[in-house]
Amino acid sequence: MELAERLWEMRGELLGELEEFLRMPSVSAREDGAFRECAGWVLERLEEAGARARMMETGGHPVVYAEVGGGERSLLSYGHYDVQPPEPLDLWESDPFEPTIRDGRLYARGVADDKGDVLARIQALRIYLQEHGELPFRLKFLIEGEEEVGSPNLAPFVRENAELLSAEACLWEGSIKDEAGRPVIFCGTKGLAYVELRAKGPSHDLHSMYGGVAPNPAWRLVQALRTIKNERGEITLDGFMELAEPPSREDLEAISRIPFDDAALRAAWGVEALDRDLSGREALEEMLLKPTANIAGMQSGYTGPGSKTIVPSEAFVKMDFRLVAGQSPSRVVKLLREHLRRRGMEDIEVVDLHGLEPAKTPVNAPIVRLAREAWSDLGRDDALVYPTIGGSGPTSLIATELGIPTIMAGNVADSQSRIHSPNESVRVEDYLETVAYFVRLFERFGGR
Amino acid sequence: MELAERLWEMRGELLGELEEFLRMPSVSAREDGAFRECAGWVLERLEEAGARARMMETGGHPVVYAEVGGGERSLLSYGHYDVQPPEPLDLWESDPFEPTIRDGRLYARGVADDKGDVLARIQALRIYLQEHGELPFRLKFLIEGEEEVGSPNLAPFVRENAELLSAEACLWEGSIKDEAGRPVIFCGTKGLAYVELRAKGPSHDLHSMYGGVAPNPAWRLVQALRTIKNERGEITLDGFMELAEPPSREDLEAISRIPFDDAALRAAWGVEALDRDLSGREALEEMLLKPTANIAGMQSGYTGPGSKTIVPSEAFVKMDFRLVAGQSPSRVVKLLREHLRRRGMEDIEVVDLHGLEPAKTPVNAPIVRLAREAWSDLGRDDALVYPTIGGSGPTSLIATELGIPTIMAGNVADSQSRIHSPNESVRVEDYLETVAYFVRLFERFGGR
Repeated sequence: MELAERLWEMRGELLGELEEFLRMPSVSAREDGAFRECAGWVLERLEEAGARARMMETGGHPVVYAEVGGGERSLLSYGHYDVQPPEPLDLWESDPFEPTIRDGRLYARGVADDKGDVLARIQALRIYLQEHGELPFRLKFLIEGEEEVGSPNLAPFVRENAELLSAEACLWEGSIKDEAGRPVIFCGTKGLAYVELRAKGPSHDLHSMYGGVAPNPAWRLVQALRTIKNERGEITLDGFMELAEPPSREDLEAISRIPFDDAALRAAWGVEALDRDLSGREALEEMLLKPTANIAGMQSGYTGPGSKTIVPSEAFVKMDFRLVAGQSPSRVVKLLREHLRRRGMEDIEVVDLHGLEPAKTPVNAPIVRLAREAWSDLGRDDALVYPTIGGSGPTSLIATELGIPTIMAGNVADSQSRIHSPNESVRVEDYLETVAYFVRLFERFGGR
Repeated sequence: MELAERLWEMRGELLGELEEFLRMPSVSAREDGAFRECAGWVLERLEEAGARARMMETGGHPVVYAEVGGGERSLLSYGHYDVQPPEPLDLWESDPFEPTIRDGRLYARGVADDKGDVLARIQALRIYLQEHGELPFRLKFLIEGEEEVGSPNLAPFVRENAELLSAEACLWEGSIKDEAGRPVIFCGTKGLAYVELRAKGPSHDLHSMYGGVAPNPAWRLVQALRTIKNERGEITLDGFMELAEPPSREDLEAISRIPFDDAALRAAWGVEALDRDLSGREALEEMLLKPTANIAGMQSGYTGPGSKTIVPSEAFVKMDFRLVAGQSPSRVVKLLREHLRRRGMEDIEVVDLHGLEPAKTPVNAPIVRLAREAWSDLGRDDALVYPTIGGSGPTSLIATELGIPTIMAGNVADSQSRIHSPNESVRVEDYLETVAYFVRLFERFGGR
């Protein structure tokens, strides 16, 4: 509490620095060089805080790498200095690159994803060193500039620098709390297999008088989809569920400790029931521990107003499969092709669009316990441990390939933060609390 | 043969008149008054030919009605003077309203649908009266101006003028031959029930990390569609097939006389197989005598390039059901709603967009025999009788409501005619043959 109060006194300095960071339009999707200026700024902040920092070139935007402290033990911190494009601009109430405080919230592109988180850790390091003089472990910063475009150069970077990045644990980017404002510690991400299924019918749209005899690609996809989920909505893709490793006893216990209000979720989504009438803990297990087969989009034929009677020439459906441990995206795409071939549906093209491996850290790993204790130190005993975040990311590069237990923890973003949308914001108080949290986390990791 | 040769000598006059007709941009979808000028022109041609013609007002564009001849027996001719919009204009090789002859074809909007057919009958009447002095039966012309916008005022007009329109038989608009150029006599149209099925999911698109628990409207539609056709592609909509009256022995016999080359159809459509591997007579029966459940379009969620991971908020599918005798569109929409309700899917909205009743004239009706004989008179013994045209139209207003046996016959349009598309055209020779055909048909009907 004392620490948090001290940081509140320093808020002018801490927020001023954050605002400087946020003014740089480091949109990774643009090729205007702003990201390099931003990378340089991050490097300077790390050096000022006491770290040995360097710019490391990749096939795309540079990585800022830094190390500080000494001793046997190492902690890795992953974040990114790039941001999403701010468009549509007319929906912003203030300039996305001119940080503005309204009603206790700081508005700017990137403040919640991920500049707030990146800088909170650097400021926490500076405060730690000011207080304690030295860091009794090695803290490593890996800060990339292409996360918002799918981290195309991260895998080779991580593989080439495996030794440099070796650590006992990793703090992944982002810090999110639940709807009720409780801090959450996430222990993994689901994998992702994103595919497009494409069916072809006649070479051109036909008059639907031929509807009884012309092969219809939209019906073809419906017939394929019905083999992927049964009439009860259960996934029936050959071999898919069998690949999924069952949740651990610890994962199930963690789930049982998470307060879950499915009525609030239904209200937020404006639906009468969840899929398959799921509720309570069963819904939460489904969301966090089970793989999914989701339709993200589909299109065929005439979709304008009124009626047009055609047999369409083409149809496609976009599907994302969220994967759990045991299910790699390449394996799932292969399963899908075999599944269709086995049913005489090899005419349906399976386009492999995007894949991410699942990553999982045990909920009882030492870093998870430490992350909870750091919250207790700040007087918060309401931190929750989630076995996964439900979504996906390149976490497996660190967690699985390098074998480093990886978590997400912190308190920057909340349910109002509009990540990736106009009017992105965080609560000023939450930002300052997160700086305090990382100071405590470093103290805990260092054995204080 | 002699008659056809005589008309070939008169071709300058006959085509000049047709070109005058085609120059009037009587696009029913436009509100510019051109259709009224065109209706007046048709009325004058009918009067010049010797008929008593009048303009009859409706809730929309006027109907041109005319009568000529005397005696007990009556023949009704239905056609329309309106045309489809010519757009996209840049795809036309010559001005759509400046008729142009290239390589023996006459290019202009409406020449194949339906101005060529309308004028061929008027010119045939004129030639008949010039040759024979008088018509020994009453020939009635019903020429409307809203066919291309769905004939919204035809039903009340027909109902209010049932007695005026009474006749022994009706020649429906249009005259189409098969791919091999054989004249076809069509004995009916399928009905149509055009609906949109709409499913709603969450009130806004969600991150697909919720794909396992959020209700997905695209999956909901797939689940509904799977109850409408089984995995073998057979229609399983409750009560739908049961309503369909089975084809008559005569219909099946007529089918057996139609040369049907499914390999040519597959080649034209660029497909390896027809739906459900249908072939030969079975395919033809399906096309002409069986109802269909066709997907004309569908859309949900993200349909742009690449991957976007969402649970979509909405999904819809556009379906057209082609109906046979026994199946009315209102009944089918009701069946569909009951079918979904019975399966707990009343959350899927069924929007009734468009309906047309089926209409069927027996293939052994006297007018069908007569229409074949008129072809024989011209030296063509290759005319085919099709039980239906497979498509739909407002034919039932005449065939079913007024109980008048109705056929389509003639030789204006062919497989290159691009009806409703840019570069609409007919063969000049075919047009002149059709004028001769109608002269012979009138002679046959009059007992010559």
